[in-house]
Amino acid sequence: MQKLVLAPDSFKGTMSSRRVCELMEQAISAVLPGAEVISIPVADGGEGSVNALLAAAGGERKKLKVTGPDGDLVQGFFGLLPDRTAVVEMAAAAGFSLTKLKDPERTTTYGVGQLLRGALDAGAERLLLCLGGSATNDGGCGAAAACGVRFFDAAGNSFVPVGGTLKKIAKIYAAGLDARLRKTPVAVMCDIDNPLCGSRGAAAFFAPQKGADPEMVLRLDAGLAHLAEILRRDLHAEVENLPGAGAAGGMGAGTAAFFGGKLQSGIETVLDAVHFDAHLDGCDLVLTGEGKLDGQSLRGKTVAGVARRAGSRGIPVAAIVGDIGADAGAAYDLGVTGIFSINRTAISYEQARLRAEEDLRLTVENLLRWTRAMECRN
Amino acid sequence: MQKLVLAPDSFKGTMSSRRVCELMEQAISAVLPGAEVISIPVADGGEGSVNALLAAAGGERKKLKVTGPDGDLVQGFFGLLPDRTAVVEMAAAAGFSLTKLKDPERTTTYGVGQLLRGALDAGAERLLLCLGGSATNDGGCGAAAACGVRFFDAAGNSFVPVGGTLKKIAKIYAAGLDARLRKTPVAVMCDIDNPLCGSRGAAAFFAPQKGADPEMVLRLDAGLAHLAEILRRDLHAEVENLPGAGAAGGMGAGTAAFFGGKLQSGIETVLDAVHFDAHLDGCDLVLTGEGKLDGQSLRGKTVAGVARRAGSRGIPVAAIVGDIGADAGAAYDLGVTGIFSINRTAISYEQARLRAEEDLRLTVENLLRWTRAMECRN
Repeated sequence: MQKLVLAPDSFKGTMSSRRVCELMEQAISAVLPGAEVISIPVADGGEGSVNALLAAAGGERKKLKVTGPDGDLVQGFFGLLPDRTAVVEMAAAAGFSLTKLKDPERTTTYGVGQLLRGALDAGAERLLLCLGGSATNDGGCGAAAACGVRFFDAAGNSFVPVGGTLKKIAKIYAAGLDARLRKTPVAVMCDIDNPLCGSRGAAAFFAPQKGADPEMVLRLDAGLAHLAEILRRDLHAEVENLPGAGAAGGMGAGTAAFFGGKLQSGIETVLDAVHFDAHLDGCDLVLTGEGKLDGQSLRGKTVAGVARRAGSRGIPVAAIVGDIGADAGAAYDLGVTGIFSINRTAISYEQARLRAEEDLRLTVENLLRWTRAMECRN
Repeated sequence: MQKLVLAPDSFKGTMSSRRVCELMEQAISAVLPGAEVISIPVADGGEGSVNALLAAAGGERKKLKVTGPDGDLVQGFFGLLPDRTAVVEMAAAAGFSLTKLKDPERTTTYGVGQLLRGALDAGAERLLLCLGGSATNDGGCGAAAACGVRFFDAAGNSFVPVGGTLKKIAKIYAAGLDARLRKTPVAVMCDIDNPLCGSRGAAAFFAPQKGADPEMVLRLDAGLAHLAEILRRDLHAEVENLPGAGAAGGMGAGTAAFFGGKLQSGIETVLDAVHFDAHLDGCDLVLTGEGKLDGQSLRGKTVAGVARRAGSRGIPVAAIVGDIGADAGAAYDLGVTGIFSINRTAISYEQARLRAEEDLRLTVENLLRWTRAMECRN
């Protein structure tokens, strides 16, 4: 083995993807001291994507004070990669961890729009917007307003809609949209396929965890349905049933309608952004992984994305994981060659997480010893 | 991979070595349907050795009613392998699980001698005696008496010594020993190196778990020391400090002195008995394993023995284990190529043991998938 590519996700609650890469590197240097190692800590397009992409591709982390979900200023940030791709995490300006209100009728995505414009100011030529972790249910209207879109009520007054005032929108006027956004590709990373409205929509599916009670869910859902109607009429945008329209409080639909954003798989976008395929040239072995591998996590997540690309080129892929869950065997069909749990003794998660780093390092070291022996024999 | 040899120990408390072999076979037939598989369920020379050796080498299990540890009749047994090696477990006639007395001053190994003679009656040309699990502390005098050795007290009366009457032995007369025993090799499987007497001797080290209180330990130790003196004088047998002399209540010393028994490593004896080395011819991969692999278990146990023989011939050895304990890394130096835990999720042993069979099967299946992929690539 001359060249290894490391592309793990984080082990949620235990190790960042960056730390996982470091531990894998230690194991490799112990067993294969001369090997070339490419470390690509992967995030799947949600929170943590900026740091992960900067670690994987290089570039700069930029700070910008913007409006937070509750309307007060927060310290936001975005990443600017060497190829002038900007990475914006929605959660950096509208994240649930930033809200004190915990009221999706009042929270706003305004700051997300400010981050997008800030990225353009910094010279971005492509925008990657990572959805997920939001406190909002405004259908992206706040972000659109920050970028120049204007919203009017029935009395002709301009306002910035929030979740609770979506149904007051009488007219949307998009001519004022920042002209740079019209010619800048916006990729929206999104790993769910929920529609905007209805029983699987943004409100019903996600608003309860943002603080909505059942009655508020109904009001939010009606507001989003109203927004969809106005978008159809005023912007000729048919976004209500796009897969992912309901992501992040309807931000999926909003970015598609206001910015021409393309909703796509987070991991595919991330792998493109870090030029993953180019790194696979001459690669003998790919190590990926995540906290728990099961049927659910194989849908569009890191391990599946990495395995599909490496596997299609005949490169063996080892998934190093915390827990091997039900249906994990489906991973073999996606291109995973072998699945190895870092659990080395029968102990509870509470105990296991305390020794996860050492267990991961030893598990990788053992696998490399085994693999090296198999190679030498042939 | 054309030929695989399976040589696991049992996973104590969870799976017999035979069951482990079956599960490994299932995994192999799923991944490598055409491969030749040799299953050798291994015991390390203690209880369970007869069944394990019969399963590995074939042969017959023979029953024989003999004197139990408490003096009443018990249903004993021994194994007769196709090559006329008889396997006798001491525990089958003098085992702790057979005693109600739980009094090492009164229990006897008489039935062990009866089993040895029974094996000779059945045509055995070699005897393997498995120590371990005994309820006795008679230095093997009972077994010797059953085979024709005579013991006399100071008054010239013949008697069968037990732990509490060893010090009454005034004279040992071995001329009456069953003549067949003189020309039959007796291998005594023993994985401890304790001497007969003293602080690491049979009484001090093992009698407490057989029911002796501290004062009885002192009496038993004095009795064994006295026996050693008479053995030296009457049989010219210098066995007190043989490594393993103190095994099984001094049975180690007794078998050496009375039967010319050779104390040797259990696993080496077992591997010889099943012609392990011959099975390795043309073998591509050896799977061994046990419940817990650590520094302790590597001393003369199954994994170490199997790895030493396969490793020295350059055959890769995978240890499939329940828990990977501290110092398990030492296994690499003994010839183990890789160590793989069957733990696939972070759960306690109480939960893990309920799914151990499925976990083992899936772990082996995954390893074979990985190994096959590595082979095909070269």
